[in-house]
Amino acid sequence: MIIVMKKGVSKEEISKVLKEVKKCGLKTHLSIGKEKTIIGMIGNGVAVSPAHFHLFSGVEDVLRVSKPFKLASREFKPEKSVIQINGVSLGGENIPIMAGPCAVESREQILETALKVKEAGATILRGGAFKPRSSPYSFQGLKEEGLEMLAEAKEKTGLSIVTEVMTAEHVPLVGKVADILQIGTRNMQNYPLLEAAGKYKKPVLLKRGMMATLEEFLMAAEYILSNGNPNVILCERGIRTFEKYTRNTLDLSAVPLLKELSHLPVCVDPSHATGSRSLITPLSKAAIAAGTDALIIEVHPHPEKALSDGAQSLNLEEFSKFMEELRPVAEAVKRRI
Amino acid sequence: MIIVMKKGVSKEEISKVLKEVKKCGLKTHLSIGKEKTIIGMIGNGVAVSPAHFHLFSGVEDVLRVSKPFKLASREFKPEKSVIQINGVSLGGENIPIMAGPCAVESREQILETALKVKEAGATILRGGAFKPRSSPYSFQGLKEEGLEMLAEAKEKTGLSIVTEVMTAEHVPLVGKVADILQIGTRNMQNYPLLEAAGKYKKPVLLKRGMMATLEEFLMAAEYILSNGNPNVILCERGIRTFEKYTRNTLDLSAVPLLKELSHLPVCVDPSHATGSRSLITPLSKAAIAAGTDALIIEVHPHPEKALSDGAQSLNLEEFSKFMEELRPVAEAVKRRI
Amino acid sequence: MIIVMKKGVSKEEISKVLKEVKKCGLKTHLSIGKEKTIIGMIGNGVAVSPAHFHLFSGVEDVLRVSKPFKLASREFKPEKSVIQINGVSLGGENIPIMAGPCAVESREQILETALKVKEAGATILRGGAFKPRSSPYSFQGLKEEGLEMLAEAKEKTGLSIVTEVMTAEHVPLVGKVADILQIGTRNMQNYPLLEAAGKYKKPVLLKRGMMATLEEFLMAAEYILSNGNPNVILCERGIRTFEKYTRNTLDLSAVPLLKELSHLPVCVDPSHATGSRSLITPLSKAAIAAGTDALIIEVHPHPEKALSDGAQSLNLEEFSKFMEELRPVAEAVKRRI
Amino acid sequence: MIIVMKKGVSKEEISKVLKEVKKCGLKTHLSIGKEKTIIGMIGNGVAVSPAHFHLFSGVEDVLRVSKPFKLASREFKPEKSVIQINGVSLGGENIPIMAGPCAVESREQILETALKVKEAGATILRGGAFKPRSSPYSFQGLKEEGLEMLAEAKEKTGLSIVTEVMTAEHVPLVGKVADILQIGTRNMQNYPLLEAAGKYKKPVLLKRGMMATLEEFLMAAEYILSNGNPNVILCERGIRTFEKYTRNTLDLSAVPLLKELSHLPVCVDPSHATGSRSLITPLSKAAIAAGTDALIIEVHPHPEKALSDGAQSLNLEEFSKFMEELRPVAEAVKRRI
Repeated sequence: MIIVMKKGVSKEEISKVLKEVKKCGLKTHLSIGKEKTIIGMIGNGVAVSPAHFHLFSGVEDVLRVSKPFKLASREFKPEKSVIQINGVSLGGENIPIMAGPCAVESREQILETALKVKEAGATILRGGAFKPRSSPYSFQGLKEEGLEMLAEAKEKTGLSIVTEVMTAEHVPLVGKVADILQIGTRNMQNYPLLEAAGKYKKPVLLKRGMMATLEEFLMAAEYILSNGNPNVILCERGIRTFEKYTRNTLDLSAVPLLKELSHLPVCVDPSHATGSRSLITPLSKAAIAAGTDALIIEVHPHPEKALSDGAQSLNLEEFSKFMEELRPVAEAVKRRI
Repeated sequence: MIIVMKKGVSKEEISKVLKEVKKCGLKTHLSIGKEKTIIGMIGNGVAVSPAHFHLFSGVEDVLRVSKPFKLASREFKPEKSVIQINGVSLGGENIPIMAGPCAVESREQILETALKVKEAGATILRGGAFKPRSSPYSFQGLKEEGLEMLAEAKEKTGLSIVTEVMTAEHVPLVGKVADILQIGTRNMQNYPLLEAAGKYKKPVLLKRGMMATLEEFLMAAEYILSNGNPNVILCERGIRTFEKYTRNTLDLSAVPLLKELSHLPVCVDPSHATGSRSLITPLSKAAIAAGTDALIIEVHPHPEKALSDGAQSLNLEEFSKFMEELRPVAEAVKRRI
Repeated sequence: MIIVMKKGVSKEEISKVLKEVKKCGLKTHLSIGKEKTIIGMIGNGVAVSPAHFHLFSGVEDVLRVSKPFKLASREFKPEKSVIQINGVSLGGENIPIMAGPCAVESREQILETALKVKEAGATILRGGAFKPRSSPYSFQGLKEEGLEMLAEAKEKTGLSIVTEVMTAEHVPLVGKVADILQIGTRNMQNYPLLEAAGKYKKPVLLKRGMMATLEEFLMAAEYILSNGNPNVILCERGIRTFEKYTRNTLDLSAVPLLKELSHLPVCVDPSHATGSRSLITPLSKAAIAAGTDALIIEVHPHPEKALSDGAQSLNLEEFSKFMEELRPVAEAVKRRI
Repeated sequence: MIIVMKKGVSKEEISKVLKEVKKCGLKTHLSIGKEKTIIGMIGNGVAVSPAHFHLFSGVEDVLRVSKPFKLASREFKPEKSVIQINGVSLGGENIPIMAGPCAVESREQILETALKVKEAGATILRGGAFKPRSSPYSFQGLKEEGLEMLAEAKEKTGLSIVTEVMTAEHVPLVGKVADILQIGTRNMQNYPLLEAAGKYKKPVLLKRGMMATLEEFLMAAEYILSNGNPNVILCERGIRTFEKYTRNTLDLSAVPLLKELSHLPVCVDPSHATGSRSLITPLSKAAIAAGTDALIIEVHPHPEKALSDGAQSLNLEEFSKFMEELRPVAEAVKRRI
């Protein structure tokens, strides 16, 4: 961290700041310029907040030099992480496709979907049993019953399961069925949940908060990593902007950027990002071209009957065609689906 | 809800949509124009999602006519709600001031602060025992021990307590000490927590998510109200924008607007919104002039020693002066502090 | 447009609104429901503003049913527009690449760049002679002298020229050299400039305002189209969001969406969107996979000596490699570079 | 500016950067730490762009230490600027109110409004003759004819005139009638217009771009100041956010913050910010409480007949009441209306 002192700062003001830096266990480096005096802090200041020093008289600005995330960074682990999910590698040459309905609605619905998405080439089945909904009057998922249906679909098809967990206490319950625990966009900063997922150790699909910067996103991953679970998949799913034609704005720059900053694999969710069926295929191709390691796609056997998010779901036939269209793009960037 | 059909839509397409509306238990009103055919839905469609109808062939757009919140709306309850907190009215002529440190750090710190903010005219003591922090390496609060210190401060000063609860399972624990349960910005859409707070019935200070629209904010309140707790205080605390000089952008339009849309009382938190000590006084005056029913202010006996958010805290002397400056503004808008 | 009246609206209020609609030259369609009364407006209401009706007593909401743009819409012209630039088609199977420095800095710089980008496969040379800069103290471009250098580069290489015009009065001056007039992000709503470009009739590369919705973007295009110039290329170049790691957030959803809404061809500028050299290649591949009709890329023979935007420029060697990497992606989506 | 080098940077990389800094005419200060090497730049680097140094191999980050605006800064001119407009001071104890219609629509309309707003206590008449509109099919103002009507209103009432100028070439034309030239939100970065207004020297009401940071806003003011015109009024008029209930989000934090950063007086436009008549009074009171030096308010004799922006206009009676309500708030913060 670097502290910039105001023009005309006094010696007393400087020495108070120097003392405080030392109290934080860090060394200082003082550089007195004609215009500005600058104090460098030397040592591991990851736990020291820049805001703390704004309080001191004479301080004009406090600039952070190091990134606040550590275990998630490329500097900490230069080689790319590859996560194993029942024999499927995520983060390597292969790009696994996760597919399935927004919500598990019935045994028939999830079994039919599972069989068909497997046939089309998906290797992981998605489907929500616990559903966070913005209205208390909307369908909230089949809960435990939904989990059982997912377990049956897994048994019948061999597909791995990714499904959402909404609270820390549900982690073991959901974890019994899920091969990947999904943490949703509204829970990206639900710290007790992140900690519980960190201790549980199963792979986690961490969705970017719709209002989260990439730095905050990586700090949320850091919560999971620092609790002992190295298996985090970072999922870009659109951020909130002023644009109204799409539900959110898919930030595809995040894909190459996260891979520069971090060793963790990256997934893209074009269904939630856009909220619009016709945009899923072009944006999935774009995500692959940008370097994503996985995709998560909403597929429903009868989108017009879906209890949630039908408007952004592909039907089974469309999904099959979708998979065909992705393959040449994956090959063009030396990946495989 | 109104469904706008595409130019040149077929009779079959129209009749499929009409059937689906009826299946949702609603009546229809068909209006065939030269350019566009429009289908109105009549009845209580609060649980029907506009997105659902986007799936149907021939549909161009689906427009919502009613607001999705009900118990929180002025239409449902035209008169303003006034919440009683140990003999202090919130929502009436009087504007209670909640003051105290971001985090409870020690017995001395919280007792000293409590005595002094009471002296200056505050009636509610704030202070976090459980602290959500974006870094896993930052101070996370004194937890149960912090709650005990708050209980002692309450006993010694008679001040009511507002403090944050981070998970559903902690509601009874925190509720033993808190007179007002605070739900933080990152948890505004933590639905299990909202439900638990709804069932617990103590007053809730619900902070607006930093990325939440006012509609989503009122829907979060609706979760608490619909679980049986009518005592919700809506707290504007800044939203995330592109502006970088302030930590967030305080949305003061939300104050008169929430009071138009809802009967619930409104509180403003200028400390977290701006992150900057020098902005607290002018924006608190502005909040009062705009019609806020309460303020929540960070006060620390020694901001430069604070373990979190010192940069945005007033010291005890500044707080005293701050209270003096607010009074004439409150009088100018026929309120009292 | 549809006008939703408040619950309990009076007959007088309704009849005043009906009269006003008729005064606007439109027919009305009244639908009195149990909960809400709704007034439909029939006819071409493109010039009527929804806000106008918000004034009337009893009006709760005014919803627009038609899109406000007309000449730019797919409804108006269902087949895709293909623009001819000196024998190069833009909007068809081929994807022209525009490349060159942010600013023309010297004769040597622009000639060297022109020769090399041509060699690598670019067909259009970009380079700013008039430069809008956020600081009055920054380099503002070589102006007329820069235009002459572009003219020489064109003569020597046969490349077409795209260069920015900042005011209406400069349109003929810049148009003498430019084959495509570029209108920059800060000028997207500079209406006198849009009108002048509309009357001048040379192809226009219209950059999306960094704060503009797609609807506003298409309305800006409508200004050019309605002044008689059908040759508009819509250029997505990143929008402003809260994310700080990138200069702007490239909105690639805009590519398929603009092509759904409009017949106009679409271009993507990954250099300005991200501000970061390492992101240009992955995002250019993504733009092609998403369906862009053209790319505009910053290339500088010596980025570290660039007077502006060096950080986001490829050098000549990198550009050559970049072109090689794009080709298989274009083929994978059945396009050509 | 401070340049942070990457971990493990080589001596050659450091020395190349040091050379480049010297080439910019600045001195360097090298500080080699255990973790990071840091290069300080000493001297006036206002014209050097941080992005430039991102190009150099070994550079991790470039941090700006000084603010990029100079003439607009409090450091340059510590005392507050007070602008004189025909005997009315703007920036002192008195808070002038500018009022009038969005657009001049007829002689009767503007004369009636002028007389009545004067009677109620306004000292400056607003009204657009040249109107930037997002649709080419909307009313674009009465242009020269509108200016003549404003001149007549000025003559008859003695009110000063503030009206918008849209292009550099119109500055003298509009300046003949206007006492204050208004530069609209869409033109905040129309640099030729800013330069022309800078050279013309009449007071300028510079509206903040709806997407502009405060730094960019002050840089736009810097364009006017550096061209010789010290009479700039900074007008906050709402920024674009994700919130949909208001047209824009009024950023009242900008008021005290601009006054900290700059000596220039500040004005607030609650009409355009919110787009909603019922919010104007509470937010005007809030603006005064936050320290604004002026207000600009839309007033129309018959808002329901307005050709633009009627929904956000007060009628003449409402304006009178509005003025009465503001006075006690102004007194509470020791100002006068």
